[in-house]
Amino acid sequence: MKEEFAHDKGKAVMPGNTFGEMFRVTTAGVSHGPGYVAIIDGCPPGLPLSVDDLMPDLRRRRPGQSKIVSQRDEEDVPEILSGVFEGMTDGTSIGILFRNKDQRSQDYADIKEKYRPGHADFTFDAKYGFRDYRGGGRSSARETLCRVAAGAIAKKILGQQGMRILGYVKQIGNVSAEIPDPTQVTLEQVEATPVRCPVPDKAAAMIQLIEEVRKDLDSIGGVCELVATGVPAGLGEPVFDKLKADLAKALLSLPAVTAFEYGAGFAVATARGSENNDSFIRKSSGQIGTESNRHGGMLGGISSGEPIVCRVAVKPTSSLPQAQRTVTRAGEPTQIAVKGRHDPCLLPRFVPMGEAMLALVLVDHWLRHRAQCGK
Amino acid sequence: MKEEFAHDKGKAVMPGNTFGEMFRVTTAGVSHGPGYVAIIDGCPPGLPLSVDDLMPDLRRRRPGQSKIVSQRDEEDVPEILSGVFEGMTDGTSIGILFRNKDQRSQDYADIKEKYRPGHADFTFDAKYGFRDYRGGGRSSARETLCRVAAGAIAKKILGQQGMRILGYVKQIGNVSAEIPDPTQVTLEQVEATPVRCPVPDKAAAMIQLIEEVRKDLDSIGGVCELVATGVPAGLGEPVFDKLKADLAKALLSLPAVTAFEYGAGFAVATARGSENNDSFIRKSSGQIGTESNRHGGMLGGISSGEPIVCRVAVKPTSSLPQAQRTVTRAGEPTQIAVKGRHDPCLLPRFVPMGEAMLALVLVDHWLRHRAQCGK
Amino acid sequence: MKEEFAHDKGKAVMPGNTFGEMFRVTTAGVSHGPGYVAIIDGCPPGLPLSVDDLMPDLRRRRPGQSKIVSQRDEEDVPEILSGVFEGMTDGTSIGILFRNKDQRSQDYADIKEKYRPGHADFTFDAKYGFRDYRGGGRSSARETLCRVAAGAIAKKILGQQGMRILGYVKQIGNVSAEIPDPTQVTLEQVEATPVRCPVPDKAAAMIQLIEEVRKDLDSIGGVCELVATGVPAGLGEPVFDKLKADLAKALLSLPAVTAFEYGAGFAVATARGSENNDSFIRKSSGQIGTESNRHGGMLGGISSGEPIVCRVAVKPTSSLPQAQRTVTRAGEPTQIAVKGRHDPCLLPRFVPMGEAMLALVLVDHWLRHRAQCGK
Amino acid sequence: MKEEFAHDKGKAVMPGNTFGEMFRVTTAGVSHGPGYVAIIDGCPPGLPLSVDDLMPDLRRRRPGQSKIVSQRDEEDVPEILSGVFEGMTDGTSIGILFRNKDQRSQDYADIKEKYRPGHADFTFDAKYGFRDYRGGGRSSARETLCRVAAGAIAKKILGQQGMRILGYVKQIGNVSAEIPDPTQVTLEQVEATPVRCPVPDKAAAMIQLIEEVRKDLDSIGGVCELVATGVPAGLGEPVFDKLKADLAKALLSLPAVTAFEYGAGFAVATARGSENNDSFIRKSSGQIGTESNRHGGMLGGISSGEPIVCRVAVKPTSSLPQAQRTVTRAGEPTQIAVKGRHDPCLLPRFVPMGEAMLALVLVDHWLRHRAQCGK
Repeated sequence: MKEEFAHDKGKAVMPGNTFGEMFRVTTAGVSHGPGYVAIIDGCPPGLPLSVDDLMPDLRRRRPGQSKIVSQRDEEDVPEILSGVFEGMTDGTSIGILFRNKDQRSQDYADIKEKYRPGHADFTFDAKYGFRDYRGGGRSSARETLCRVAAGAIAKKILGQQGMRILGYVKQIGNVSAEIPDPTQVTLEQVEATPVRCPVPDKAAAMIQLIEEVRKDLDSIGGVCELVATGVPAGLGEPVFDKLKADLAKALLSLPAVTAFEYGAGFAVATARGSENNDSFIRKSSGQIGTESNRHGGMLGGISSGEPIVCRVAVKPTSSLPQAQRTVTRAGEPTQIAVKGRHDPCLLPRFVPMGEAMLALVLVDHWLRHRAQCGK
Repeated sequence: MKEEFAHDKGKAVMPGNTFGEMFRVTTAGVSHGPGYVAIIDGCPPGLPLSVDDLMPDLRRRRPGQSKIVSQRDEEDVPEILSGVFEGMTDGTSIGILFRNKDQRSQDYADIKEKYRPGHADFTFDAKYGFRDYRGGGRSSARETLCRVAAGAIAKKILGQQGMRILGYVKQIGNVSAEIPDPTQVTLEQVEATPVRCPVPDKAAAMIQLIEEVRKDLDSIGGVCELVATGVPAGLGEPVFDKLKADLAKALLSLPAVTAFEYGAGFAVATARGSENNDSFIRKSSGQIGTESNRHGGMLGGISSGEPIVCRVAVKPTSSLPQAQRTVTRAGEPTQIAVKGRHDPCLLPRFVPMGEAMLALVLVDHWLRHRAQCGK
Repeated sequence: MKEEFAHDKGKAVMPGNTFGEMFRVTTAGVSHGPGYVAIIDGCPPGLPLSVDDLMPDLRRRRPGQSKIVSQRDEEDVPEILSGVFEGMTDGTSIGILFRNKDQRSQDYADIKEKYRPGHADFTFDAKYGFRDYRGGGRSSARETLCRVAAGAIAKKILGQQGMRILGYVKQIGNVSAEIPDPTQVTLEQVEATPVRCPVPDKAAAMIQLIEEVRKDLDSIGGVCELVATGVPAGLGEPVFDKLKADLAKALLSLPAVTAFEYGAGFAVATARGSENNDSFIRKSSGQIGTESNRHGGMLGGISSGEPIVCRVAVKPTSSLPQAQRTVTRAGEPTQIAVKGRHDPCLLPRFVPMGEAMLALVLVDHWLRHRAQCGK
Repeated sequence: MKEEFAHDKGKAVMPGNTFGEMFRVTTAGVSHGPGYVAIIDGCPPGLPLSVDDLMPDLRRRRPGQSKIVSQRDEEDVPEILSGVFEGMTDGTSIGILFRNKDQRSQDYADIKEKYRPGHADFTFDAKYGFRDYRGGGRSSARETLCRVAAGAIAKKILGQQGMRILGYVKQIGNVSAEIPDPTQVTLEQVEATPVRCPVPDKAAAMIQLIEEVRKDLDSIGGVCELVATGVPAGLGEPVFDKLKADLAKALLSLPAVTAFEYGAGFAVATARGSENNDSFIRKSSGQIGTESNRHGGMLGGISSGEPIVCRVAVKPTSSLPQAQRTVTRAGEPTQIAVKGRHDPCLLPRFVPMGEAMLALVLVDHWLRHRAQCGK
């Protein structure tokens, strides 16, 4: 007789923990296990790299950084295990290790048997037959610390080529900031407030809204805008691997993202071609570009040399301290109020995650491009 | 001395003409060459299949089908070269051939030296150093006929499992149709008018708008909504290969798509968690589901068993018969009026393309799921 | 009720019809269907290409070329469907179509119910539940004409870089040719006889042996040696994608190949390190190389700049005109004498197939290398 | 001005640190850095797993296990970071960490400037422009401890399905063991001596030979035979991903392997078809099989249900304590005697590495097969 797998007979898992073609990130880890590990394959040799390069974005991502985010206390200081020799990347795969510290698994005992609305509890059970019920397990947004670390390396490579990535909060609830020229926003403006909106009065209103929502034991959604400048024309493949397609996948692969648009986005629906087309011109630099940028820096799925501008919607945190109706694993009606230390609004900590995914896509396509161009 | 490549020294191309993991489509062809070929790898054996299965969606996609679309006359009847034995798929790769017929390459002579606004002419030159200037070459939307053929096979597989895919036009310009329950729309309603909007008076208004736009030598954008019903819970991978992420990539890989959202989409930005979370309930069937479907059928990137609902924005046709400002390859200011037989609105013919991509993603993840579940 | 797949409930197929990472070949077709199609993705733009470039190797591969091979009459003239514009590759995927002509399906009626020894009939049934019983179906060696066409493109790219690929028959049965310096063999020597052994008296003995074997209604195996010269140092990846590993996979993916070795090969088993290590020296060109080449041009899985030399064993043709014991699908003992027009020895036609696979691996790793080096 | 990469301008690296399709292993680490990490993606949930499952094969692989292998002292006890929940795999990616301990980097100071014969020093420099010169860096065979750990998991999965993997030393130098029936060899017989040859008198002769070679400051090669029993018919894909092809790649991806053959291997060259074909018969179990097994358990690249039998040649250790001629990085003639604690013969420690690669390929294809069969 053949021995069977314990929980679910004959369930396999398809590999799905790797992102990228030429700059490839593979991750493992859960929020309440010993830690996370990421392997980054495809980083060019000769890049000066140390943990210090990873810390700024990790600090922007980490919980406990301000009063308006989760108070879970994680330092999130990684150890680089390989791929760096005498201070430089050496072309071999980079291993990065994060230890989990402040786990408090006891907070999650209640959710073992009840499905939290808006979470992956039910779908994990439907898929695998059981789940690591400690705080989301593998679907925890804590996994994004691997992405942010990898994204920091990607950003450094891009920076050496004159490409800059920046994200900011554009909208929370009904508070929306007008950004006349996304390319003029600075990191300092973004980091000036804990909410990461570069328009000060809007930032203040957003913070106030978050405080209100928290008092109401509720949460609130928003919109993050991401901008890449200095991107050369020619990045992206013309058919399936369009730059816009890979950006959409990258950003939708982040937890809580429900929508993506670039350039004019959904506004193209009401536009006529004569107003939506950006006219080509010769710029003062002598280079060919466009007069306006409704195309968000991508034409035919390939970068045009204009700034890449895109936006994503992030839903309100699903975990709420207030009671919500749901069912048990057996289907019995019940209620659940999710304890733990959750963000009342995901947007402030989302910014570095969104930047990381944009950076990972760009460095991947830039490496493809360099392969193509021999530059 | 080593002989060099002719046009551009040392330019390689990264493969990007394949889509899917377990149900894999590879395409080749350009709009003004001899034809297109698609290879579909991973189709299960034993599926009854003939050209007749592919024709309905190909007819919905083809130009010349009605007065409001391009009048290019292509029959688009494929030849199945392999993978079908005695009327059944036999598990080997399926080769499909389309011959181009009505090419009229002379229509495109003017665009050899001028960059058409909104098109990939400039970005192709930036990427490869030269381009097939005949009607978009590889970036022509005519490539989607391969996808629609593959999608028809995918739909047939899904149909055997009780999954149904349907798309329709929800908005063109300012004419927007309210669809209270997307799961109640029928193919007959969609196909009742050439514009593929299931709400008759809105369809009439859309057709009138398209006619106006055409008279103005202009074009107009819109929104397509796509719905999948009968999708079992458990499809999608929890980290990078989330179902929502793969859907976003699939749909953004189509020409002219500038935005994607699922479920509540961008509307989550103004929602509170207490209203955005869908409560779990036990349904009359005994199965666990949700009371509402703001999550668009996906939680944690995995299907929940509720209908999958998503929307994409499609920009107005870039090719316009009216003169538009642009530059030549040398950067000299000029004007271009794009001759040829272009659609004044892409939406009617987009519907089967969107359905095809949704079907390809679902069959891919369903095959992964079946591998996982041993069902 | 869900309709089921006809023959075998719930059988999926994993994609396995694609080879290569950066120069990627996907094939479809069976020996007794309408034809074969190949899509080559990743070919650099600007390469002059026409059908004439493909014909020489296709002629070396085709049946009916001489008296000692199969007399099936196939011209094997391909049509290039895409990827070539104005006589040059344009960077888009290349579609190649072959029509089958001389099929004679009736020859294969007997094998529908009996398992041919040495063939994939039984294993196909075990895998899929049924099979295309016409001449091997998808497992027919006729599929290699796609590989040979793709290999001809690969060879042309390599040739521009000063790399030359050549194979020849080294052994058939007990007739073995000594080749003191594999790099000195010329294409003319190889093509001087239909058996493709560059040593004339050995070639004559091989031809005589093949004739004897044919008269005995039998077949005979042999060894093919493959050589690549002009390969720069640095091709291959250090861990899993070693050049030697990818060569081994490529060559073992050909029908009838049962063994692979490079350099000293199996002879390392009896060697001491002091004799097996090739000493590094500075060559008269000033470049660093090795004094001898027991390492067959690869160290640590990476090319060393020395000639790449490898050998494969090819088994005797499984199809025999003499009666052989076997069973029916139901397991009943029976006999089968395989009609049809089979090669009494596969080696002469194998040479271009082996060369093609060597070329495909080298161009793939050369493109990787160029991406790495920015050259 | 764009800052450049430090050592080598514009060098990228292609990802090559991942093996497998459905059971996927990604590794990072170097022999003289802090440690190694492996991520295993695709392991089915519900498999009981702990470090104890990994230790037996790791002990068989580790240095210092006997007098005839390297005396480097590494415990090689891994830490499982993720993918195991409450003693079971949970379907998420498995992270495994190994800390390096006994590094002695000073041993390698001499090789910084000299190319060791038989090693990857020169080819690394040719590829990347510089290298981690500490003991082979990324090309060190120490990387195989990740493979052996992953292979142990693969073996456990296979074992539950009744598949058994076993390897042994068949030949060292001129001492060759006849193994009449490879399927009758037991693990106990293999482990009875430190040389892992199951024939006692041959094992004794091999040990004596290794001792002699060591005294001569030399090394010696050999042959390892690998056997898999209980493998169901139907594993492997018919075209490029043939089981024999993937096995060849897997085994040639191991350091020092120079040749691969399965079944009759190179002996097919002198065989006639009538003797090389294995007749199909109905076995006493009622199942169809073959009377003999010259096909080594694979027909058409697909497993036949007969035992899989293959052999690989392993070259003599390249590192020798005796002086050997070589050149410096600058090309100046010099000599090098490689200090350190190297194996005089790689075969004894190779056995678990070869088994691991065989297990990884089989579990990968078995998971594909299960996906295909719905079993």
